[in-house]
Amino acid sequence: MADNKFWSDIVTKLDPYVPGEQPKLANLVKLNTNENPYGPSPTVAAAITAELGDSLRLYPDPNADVLKQAIARSLDVDVSQVFLGNGSDEVLAHIFQGLLKHEEPILFPDITYSFYPVYCGLYQVDFLPVPLSKDPSIDKDLSINIADYQQPNGGIIFPNPNAPTGKLLSLADIESLLRMNTESVVVVDEAYIDFGGESAVELVGRFPNLLVTQTFSKSRSLAGLRVGFAVGDAGLIDALERVKNSFNSYPLDRLAIVGAVAAIEDIDYFEKTCEQVITSRESLAAELQSLGFSVLPSKANFVFAKHPDHDAARLSAGLRKEGIIVRHFNHARIDQYLRITVGLPDQNQQLIASLSRLLD
Amino acid sequence: MADNKFWSDIVTKLDPYVPGEQPKLANLVKLNTNENPYGPSPTVAAAITAELGDSLRLYPDPNADVLKQAIARSLDVDVSQVFLGNGSDEVLAHIFQGLLKHEEPILFPDITYSFYPVYCGLYQVDFLPVPLSKDPSIDKDLSINIADYQQPNGGIIFPNPNAPTGKLLSLADIESLLRMNTESVVVVDEAYIDFGGESAVELVGRFPNLLVTQTFSKSRSLAGLRVGFAVGDAGLIDALERVKNSFNSYPLDRLAIVGAVAAIEDIDYFEKTCEQVITSRESLAAELQSLGFSVLPSKANFVFAKHPDHDAARLSAGLRKEGIIVRHFNHARIDQYLRITVGLPDQNQQLIASLSRLLD
Repeated sequence: MADNKFWSDIVTKLDPYVPGEQPKLANLVKLNTNENPYGPSPTVAAAITAELGDSLRLYPDPNADVLKQAIARSLDVDVSQVFLGNGSDEVLAHIFQGLLKHEEPILFPDITYSFYPVYCGLYQVDFLPVPLSKDPSIDKDLSINIADYQQPNGGIIFPNPNAPTGKLLSLADIESLLRMNTESVVVVDEAYIDFGGESAVELVGRFPNLLVTQTFSKSRSLAGLRVGFAVGDAGLIDALERVKNSFNSYPLDRLAIVGAVAAIEDIDYFEKTCEQVITSRESLAAELQSLGFSVLPSKANFVFAKHPDHDAARLSAGLRKEGIIVRHFNHARIDQYLRITVGLPDQNQQLIASLSRLLD
Repeated sequence: MADNKFWSDIVTKLDPYVPGEQPKLANLVKLNTNENPYGPSPTVAAAITAELGDSLRLYPDPNADVLKQAIARSLDVDVSQVFLGNGSDEVLAHIFQGLLKHEEPILFPDITYSFYPVYCGLYQVDFLPVPLSKDPSIDKDLSINIADYQQPNGGIIFPNPNAPTGKLLSLADIESLLRMNTESVVVVDEAYIDFGGESAVELVGRFPNLLVTQTFSKSRSLAGLRVGFAVGDAGLIDALERVKNSFNSYPLDRLAIVGAVAAIEDIDYFEKTCEQVITSRESLAAELQSLGFSVLPSKANFVFAKHPDHDAARLSAGLRKEGIIVRHFNHARIDQYLRITVGLPDQNQQLIASLSRLLD
C-alpha cells in the first residue's frame, strides 16, 4: 500500500518485524517458531476455567499483583523488581523506549533476535550491530565476545542463549560485562534460559543496571496466552511502569494472569518438560551430526545446523513439501543454516527421516 | 521514586494515566469504571473452554483473522478496514503514534477521556484542548460544538458519547465535522456507542480520514479480556498495522480471540443486555433528578450528575463508607459532578437509597 498523507512521519520509515509463519494447515510438523512441544501444565486450564463467567465483565487488576507475586516468589526477588507485559515482545518494546534511548547507540549482536532493530526504528534509537565471532570451529563460530562490547554505548541487549544460534554466554561472562559497563543498562533476554542455561536473575541485586527478561511462551508452554516479564532493580522497573501506564493500563487479561500463575507454580511439570526437551535436543543434534550436519552447541529449545554439501534454502523447501516447517533466514553469514525447533520425539524422527531422504 | 540515570529522557516527563480504582474487597457496589452490570454472553465461556488445552502452547494468529472477519461481518465493512488491539487503549496508543503526530497540534475536548493527554506525552504530540460549551442549561452545558474544531490541526479525537459527560454528538454533526476537516484524521472513540448512539462506522466508506474505535469492554461485557478495534479506510489501518507489527506481533491471545468472536456473534444477547442497561439508565437518571440532582442527558452506560446543595467529593466519600464506589474527578468545571456507572437494578436502588440518606 502507498504512503498516505494522514500517516505520522515515523510510519513511512518503519520496516516491521515478520514473525515466523503460523500456517493454518492441519497435520504439519511445525518446527519453525520455537514453541514447546509439550502443552502447558494441566493446572493452567483448571485455573482459567475457574475464572470464566461473570468476572470477565470486570477489568483485570492493572498491576496483575497476583502474578507479580508468584514470579517474585519463584525467582526469589522483590515484587518491586518485577515488570509484566503482554508477551516479552511488549516488555522489550517498553525497554527500548524507556531505558535504551540515549545519546550513544545501543549495542547488540549482528546476528540476533530480529525484532531489536525494528524497535530501534519505532523509537528512533541509534544502534550499532556487533559482529559475532568468525571461527572455523563450529564450537567457536558465531559467539558473543563480551570484549567487543567494551565501547561507549547507550545500552546493551542480547538474548542468552542467543537466537537463532542457541549459544549460551556463561554467568561469569555476564558478570564481567556488567562490571565493565556500569553507565548504561544491560538487558539479558532470557527467552530460552530454562533449557540448560543459568539465569542472570541472581545478579540483579548487585547490578542496578541489569535487566533480565523472560517469557511464558517457551519453557512454560503458553505462547498462546502472551505473558512476559522483566526482573531488575526497582529503579529500572519504575521506568517501565511509567511507560506502560502511559500506553495501556491493563495489558494482561484476567485469563492470562491466572493461567500464568498456575504455570509458574507447577514446578514439577516445568522441570520435567524442560528436561524432556533438553534430552530430545541432544538426540536431535547427534542425529543431525550423523547425517553430516554441523550443529552449533545449543542451550535453547532449537538447534542451528548447516550441511557442508546441501543448500539450506533447498533443504527447507524440500522439508516443507513433506509437511515439515523449519526456519531459514535469508541473511548473510547464516543463510546456510536451518533453525529447527525441538519437537516431540516422533516429530524429530520424522524430520531426521525426511532429511535423510533429501540428502540422498 | 527518584529519577534514574538509566532512564530515557521521555520517562522523566511522563505523567501516567491513573485508571479507576479496582478495589479487591468483596461485596462492593462497584459503579466507578463503567463495566457492564451483565456478564458476557454464555457462548464466550464455551468458546474459551474449547480453546483450552494443548493449543495454548502455540502462538496465536498474529493477525487474529477470525476475529477481524467476525467484526467485518458484524459491521458490514471489509477485513482490510479493521484493526485489532489489546483493549481499545492499545488501539488508541497506536493511533496517536501512527496517525496523530504532525506539525499542527491535535484537538480534543478539554473535558474528555483523560488518557488522551497521556498519549500525547508518551509520543510527544502537541495538543490543544477545546473547551466544552458553557451554558446555564444542563442540557446545553458541557457539549462538544463542532464549529470550535474549525481550525488548523494535526488531527481531531473525541469520544462519542463523550466521557465523562455521556453526551452524544449526532451523526449529522460528525458528518459536518468530516466535511470541514478533510486534511487530518478524525478519530471517533465509540467506547459507549451501543447504549443509544448511532455509530459513525457507516461513514467510513465515504471519508478516508475517518477512524472509529470501539471496545469489547463495555457493551460486549469483556473488560476482563482486553479487546478493542478500529474501523477506517484501509490506508489508515495499514499505518496502524505497521506500528503494531513494529511493537508487538501477537497482542491478542488465543482466548481473547475466540472469546471476542463468540461475543460479537451473539447478537440477541448483546441487544437484550444493551436494552436493559438503557432502561436502567433512564430510571436511574429520573430517580437522581427526583433527589434534586442535575443529570446530563446520557447515551452511555453511566450518568454524570451534580447536586446544587451537596459537595460531590463529600457525597463520593459518604457513598464509599456504605460500600458504593462512584467516580469523582478533582478537575475544574466538573469537580461538583459524580460519574455513576449504571449497575444492576438492585445496585442502582442501593445507590439511590444511600444518596437519600446522605442528602438528609
